[in-house]
Amino acid sequence: MPDVEIMTIGDELLYGQVVDTNSAFMGQELGKIGLRVRQISSVSDRADEIVAALDQARQRAQIVLMTGGLGPTKDDLTKHVLARYFGAELVEHAPTLRHVEDIFRRFGRPMLDVNRQQALVPAGCEVLHNAVGTAPGMWFEDGGTVFVSMPGVPFEMKKLMSDEVLPRLQKRFQLAPIEHLVVMTAGLGESFLAEKIADWEAALPPNFKLAYLPSLGSVRLRLTAAADGLPDLRSRLEAQLPALRERLGEYIFAVGEVPLEAAIGKLLKEQNLTLGTAESCTGGYVASKLTSVAGASAYFLGSVIAYHNDVKIKQLGVRPETLAAHGAVSEATVREMAEGARQHLGVDVALATSGIAGPGGGSEQKPVGTMCLAVADAQGTVSRQFTMDRGRQINIEYTTQAVLNLLRQRLTGLA
Amino acid sequence: MPDVEIMTIGDELLYGQVVDTNSAFMGQELGKIGLRVRQISSVSDRADEIVAALDQARQRAQIVLMTGGLGPTKDDLTKHVLARYFGAELVEHAPTLRHVEDIFRRFGRPMLDVNRQQALVPAGCEVLHNAVGTAPGMWFEDGGTVFVSMPGVPFEMKKLMSDEVLPRLQKRFQLAPIEHLVVMTAGLGESFLAEKIADWEAALPPNFKLAYLPSLGSVRLRLTAAADGLPDLRSRLEAQLPALRERLGEYIFAVGEVPLEAAIGKLLKEQNLTLGTAESCTGGYVASKLTSVAGASAYFLGSVIAYHNDVKIKQLGVRPETLAAHGAVSEATVREMAEGARQHLGVDVALATSGIAGPGGGSEQKPVGTMCLAVADAQGTVSRQFTMDRGRQINIEYTTQAVLNLLRQRLTGLA
Repeated sequence: MPDVEIMTIGDELLYGQVVDTNSAFMGQELGKIGLRVRQISSVSDRADEIVAALDQARQRAQIVLMTGGLGPTKDDLTKHVLARYFGAELVEHAPTLRHVEDIFRRFGRPMLDVNRQQALVPAGCEVLHNAVGTAPGMWFEDGGTVFVSMPGVPFEMKKLMSDEVLPRLQKRFQLAPIEHLVVMTAGLGESFLAEKIADWEAALPPNFKLAYLPSLGSVRLRLTAAADGLPDLRSRLEAQLPALRERLGEYIFAVGEVPLEAAIGKLLKEQNLTLGTAESCTGGYVASKLTSVAGASAYFLGSVIAYHNDVKIKQLGVRPETLAAHGAVSEATVREMAEGARQHLGVDVALATSGIAGPGGGSEQKPVGTMCLAVADAQGTVSRQFTMDRGRQINIEYTTQAVLNLLRQRLTGLA
Repeated sequence: MPDVEIMTIGDELLYGQVVDTNSAFMGQELGKIGLRVRQISSVSDRADEIVAALDQARQRAQIVLMTGGLGPTKDDLTKHVLARYFGAELVEHAPTLRHVEDIFRRFGRPMLDVNRQQALVPAGCEVLHNAVGTAPGMWFEDGGTVFVSMPGVPFEMKKLMSDEVLPRLQKRFQLAPIEHLVVMTAGLGESFLAEKIADWEAALPPNFKLAYLPSLGSVRLRLTAAADGLPDLRSRLEAQLPALRERLGEYIFAVGEVPLEAAIGKLLKEQNLTLGTAESCTGGYVASKLTSVAGASAYFLGSVIAYHNDVKIKQLGVRPETLAAHGAVSEATVREMAEGARQHLGVDVALATSGIAGPGGGSEQKPVGTMCLAVADAQGTVSRQFTMDRGRQINIEYTTQAVLNLLRQRLTGLA
């Protein structure tokens, strides 16, 4: 199996002005077709340093994927360096020129000579059409090594990877087909999950592999099946699902790469329910997650962010006596917030958060990281309290995941 | 001047499970003390591949900074590889052992043998105290090259860099002192800024250098002065500020690394004003930005996220006639939202957003990316409208920056 080297090019990466997110995307996608990334190198815009990196990369890997340095400005050198590296002239690629002209025509902007130069490519390379930008991708083969150059703009690179590069790599290296099944879980940590499915994992066929991909409050399970010469790989992969559901049913919220907020949107649409939020410590973070889903307006009606107690009382109908007796950070208050949001926002289901995000505001009894959650619907109200302090921003994000998971459980009859 | 190579170690980086944010932080911090990063390499947890990368890094750079692979589990190899690489035995470092024991005692958790092994270090290395974790940093010198190993956990690495590594590098390589002045601007693109200050930039002393660091809706200007043997470097740097303010006054919102939402918090506290938001298209993103600032509860009271028109009418008092005549996405509506938020939330100043974030919901007259903003205070209401579509999430984030900047202008008498 050929190894891959990723080379990201640009001074802005070395200065730390830009975080290299391209490499992680490429690493994930390459892994899905069974290719291993041997090394990632970020290098400057200097020609000699790009050449030195190319020389070393080809010694480690049979596939070298480059991003960056294809813009129209004079510090973007990659194309010129590659032309020299492979001893080729730059020649105009007519379909690319027409594509660039089209783009400028569509936006009604004048085309400059530097834009026209986007259509120049080293002779002999295979041009990969960039449907969403002006700089084409380029595929070279030299001494048995494949070199691919792509723009550094993430969405252009992603489209080129999916549409052009990955299919060509699969074909060129006759990669055995691989099938993946992603199962999204929430509410249980990686090691507890692993324990619950240990017997199932141990009994997987030898060509099946399980990866745990944890993020805050959620673990993705990726089950990968490598072709074994037998038919129906996909259905054999899917045949593993029922046994997994038996062990993890209540923690699974989706099959496929679906964020929790989108899975919730789907449940709400199916059940024809509207949603609102009443947030204190999360300060709108839950609402912004929910509304990050395109089409959220079909079920999300609105929120009250009630940082101050006056807002909790006036906009949500929380009773002053409850606040006096239990404090703002209490299950009693957060339940009234959720119930009040249902009424005041006119929604079927409302969630609520109240807690101490920190770094200040903690006490002996209620330390920083004390978090209260509630979900109210026509059947009643459920609430939870927990304490976890990992810094203000993570506290907010973790609480958001936790209340969304409580909502998900409520919508599926688990809470 | 010695060059630096950054080596981040861990299979999770190559698989793309984790985005390497450590390198960008290190690149920024090294740049501030005048060191250039020559290359960033991410390598696997395999001993032979780490050794090969070390061999190459020392040929490119005189300083090699490593992160990762220092955890207690068996796939964390860095320490063992380094011991072998430098021909040293692993020996117990007593102060580190006491520190690890302290941490476990404090959290009341039993200490396992793997935890005790965190105190083993290659003989002869200089141990760098990790105040916030169990894995110490390690400083090696070999054949004129400095090698530093740090944990991969971002906040541990950051603390080690600031407290231990950067000061030692400055001393070891007798780096000339460098002073920085960061000026935060909002509301003007990079090229327009550059035009406005071209004469000022051209007249800077030769040892002064200006960097433009753009992000969504904001540009940081970093003015760097390298020591020139003359006294008062800092004050000569600061002496450049008045001329910069003359040219950019209204766009400058802070001196120093201060996010816009924190600068606004400072203004509100100074003016003893409370704030609330009324958000439609931004769906709580503005509120979550404002509440990401620790201590925001001193001035931020709450928000109404009014996605649905009923919520705009009921919770914010927007008039149905206004919605009927102008639509939800209009300056007329967004002004009533801001004014309503002032009243209903009982705040001194309120901002409001309404727009079409996309990808759906656009029309001929109001295409996706049409955004309306308003700020209302005791003196009246200001509003703006613009159109810019760069995808749902960026539309939301850009609109948030824009309305925060309008608020900032209002609070400083500019709007």
